[in-house]
Amino acid sequence: MIEKQTIRTLIVEIPSAPGNFAKVATAIGDADGDIGDIKTIKIGTLSTVRDITVVCETEDDLKQVVESVRAVDGVEVHAVTDDVLKAHEGGKIHMKSKRDVRSLSDLRRVYTPGVANVCKEIQKDPEQARYFTSIGNSVAIVTDGTAILGLGNIGPVAGMPVMEGKAVLFDQFAGISGVPILLDTSDPDAVVETVKHIHQSYGAILLEDIGSPHCFEIEERLKKELPIPVMHDDQHGTAVVTLASFLTACKAAGIDPAEADVGQIGLGAAGIAICRMLMEYGVKDVFGVDLNEEAVKRLQGYGGKTLDSLDELMDRCDIVIATTGVSGLIKPEMVKKGQVILALSNPHPEIRPEDALEAGAAFAADGRLVNNVLGFPGIFRGALNARANAITYDMLIAAAEAIVAHTKKGDLVPHALDPAVHQAVAEAVERVAARNHV
Amino acid sequence: MIEKQTIRTLIVEIPSAPGNFAKVATAIGDADGDIGDIKTIKIGTLSTVRDITVVCETEDDLKQVVESVRAVDGVEVHAVTDDVLKAHEGGKIHMKSKRDVRSLSDLRRVYTPGVANVCKEIQKDPEQARYFTSIGNSVAIVTDGTAILGLGNIGPVAGMPVMEGKAVLFDQFAGISGVPILLDTSDPDAVVETVKHIHQSYGAILLEDIGSPHCFEIEERLKKELPIPVMHDDQHGTAVVTLASFLTACKAAGIDPAEADVGQIGLGAAGIAICRMLMEYGVKDVFGVDLNEEAVKRLQGYGGKTLDSLDELMDRCDIVIATTGVSGLIKPEMVKKGQVILALSNPHPEIRPEDALEAGAAFAADGRLVNNVLGFPGIFRGALNARANAITYDMLIAAAEAIVAHTKKGDLVPHALDPAVHQAVAEAVERVAARNHV
Repeated sequence: MIEKQTIRTLIVEIPSAPGNFAKVATAIGDADGDIGDIKTIKIGTLSTVRDITVVCETEDDLKQVVESVRAVDGVEVHAVTDDVLKAHEGGKIHMKSKRDVRSLSDLRRVYTPGVANVCKEIQKDPEQARYFTSIGNSVAIVTDGTAILGLGNIGPVAGMPVMEGKAVLFDQFAGISGVPILLDTSDPDAVVETVKHIHQSYGAILLEDIGSPHCFEIEERLKKELPIPVMHDDQHGTAVVTLASFLTACKAAGIDPAEADVGQIGLGAAGIAICRMLMEYGVKDVFGVDLNEEAVKRLQGYGGKTLDSLDELMDRCDIVIATTGVSGLIKPEMVKKGQVILALSNPHPEIRPEDALEAGAAFAADGRLVNNVLGFPGIFRGALNARANAITYDMLIAAAEAIVAHTKKGDLVPHALDPAVHQAVAEAVERVAARNHV
Repeated sequence: MIEKQTIRTLIVEIPSAPGNFAKVATAIGDADGDIGDIKTIKIGTLSTVRDITVVCETEDDLKQVVESVRAVDGVEVHAVTDDVLKAHEGGKIHMKSKRDVRSLSDLRRVYTPGVANVCKEIQKDPEQARYFTSIGNSVAIVTDGTAILGLGNIGPVAGMPVMEGKAVLFDQFAGISGVPILLDTSDPDAVVETVKHIHQSYGAILLEDIGSPHCFEIEERLKKELPIPVMHDDQHGTAVVTLASFLTACKAAGIDPAEADVGQIGLGAAGIAICRMLMEYGVKDVFGVDLNEEAVKRLQGYGGKTLDSLDELMDRCDIVIATTGVSGLIKPEMVKKGQVILALSNPHPEIRPEDALEAGAAFAADGRLVNNVLGFPGIFRGALNARANAITYDMLIAAAEAIVAHTKKGDLVPHALDPAVHQAVAEAVERVAARNHV
């Protein structure tokens, strides 16, 4: 007997009439599919949507099953999901009530007429909104969909699974209510106006997957014009985790970070932010390279130094960080003996750590573990706890140092799911914000 | 022994240092307060916020307790809450993850790198966003804070408890993820632009507590320009529940609604919408009155008839609906024998039902039970289920009829917490939307 092994879930919409489901089940059986779990995901008046898990021998058999189901009159197969897609079914987030409404007195307490008293308290003293609304614990996750992961400009709707993922991590690691905002514009004027008009709904703003170069103007203007913290995670969240990795790598290689020559290859949103973060940390000689003239000028505008070529950078620098997205950009022959190399592009690094080490590097790592999730939940938790007006470099550097302090000997970064790391980051950020009266 | 009976909860922020909490407890005891439950609501690095329930003999004693606690060095009393305020502590809503992230494989499934596959599916076929994101189940609850309940223009932040209340009811009665959006502008151009720029985040838009007259332009423009349902609840949600009450009252008084002369007193957002709804339902003679010339012209612009005075309306109409907010506006001597009177202003009606009945009315009711909560959750559930592009009058009338069908003999409206009503409204709306291909 051949073992069946292709397991998929069909999302099927079936008209609500007796016998229709049996026709679908028959169609699956006729095409040699085994039916596994069946879950009802929407009971509508006119149709019902069900999740039907089907086990087949091969992908081709699965196609037969789908065709057979589609041939049933009035039945639609909306999607065929695997394990990952299944984890996203129906979306990953939901705005939940924290109170049960089970009686008229519950209703009168959380809604009219009781709610009027709460409104009046806040009208008298707007500070009370911190205690009687969710505003102070909410962060908008704002994207225009122009730089979704490594996928590029796929639009905000296709980027929504990432925004929901961020909200999931906010909830799970920091108890923050994260609210995705999908923008249909990338024009800095329109983005800034829109976010300003809605900012009172939130305690802070996370900008996410907004492309370069418009991300720079958008973040700078929002920071200047809004009274709440604003942070572009692809810049500063990445820079925090990179700074932490950098410090740990320096320790491992016995290099003094402040005195080293550091080279940053790739000056996109992340690369520029990493250079700025290293300079703020106190590294005297940070050099950037990029093929894009405008990016090079941008770094110079922030007071950064640049070099003319990749070869020059590889030749000169003790520590090299790469965020170019170009797999294999760094050839083994470019590696200098004793160099530290962090080739952070995902999923394919600029040079594989084992190749860099073989070529003489003292320390090498790729970006698989250098994940933003180590930074943003705790950074925002700390900023909200401190009621900060901004997220400053001091707060970000404190976050990086908290990450370093929680890194086990031999590791580059801590385990991303360790709640102690997120708590330590939040505490460090809150403490610095309070000390500096941010 | 005198029984202590003033029970309040103090929200107290105490610096995180040993012995500080004991000082607070001592201060409460010194002022003759008994300490009840103590709940930690925020553990910060520098301070801890606690909910301390205190029992005192009188309000004055309570003041003593608060002063005594405030006198402790470094301690802040942020708020003193009663039962209603307590139900709002920390806000009433939270964006929850629907997935637990307990392992690296969970993380790789709901976040990077797995999430990239989901993004790509949606990029290929945007319809898939319905299945793999929360967009199709989310409704924005948009306000500018200019007409919060009967409180008027108190601003969107003070109005947030109402928006959160709406989100609570969406979650509890319709499984919808309701997301408050607080606007810092009432300018129709800016509101329309802002909502358009963020609309892709949601399956529908609920406009809430936006004042008259700008609410009319904002709603009409958004309806025209957005591909998703938009509804101003204070207009059409109220009109649906009023139409249901009207039909039930007609039945009780033995009046044919289509042939009756109906008078609407007060042509604000609700009054205008009620007139339009009655006309759409097929009532031939609907007359409005208002002291505001502009409001009268607006009704005429929608094809409605108007009368010159309240006296003329009371004299002529078989059925009178009042939504003026003016308590006692209708004097008993104005009431005509056999008239039906729905005096809907909350919390004080234009005439008390018992006074209207004594003055000869055939049927009289006030607005205590005519609550929007009977309408909007089911209306939006039905529209989202049908994937409708709009909420039409046919759908709203179907909602009203579903409410009437669920009203028990002798009642004006059904019980607001009966899940069967919300389901019936949703089904009726979905059915009409599908039939009419909305």
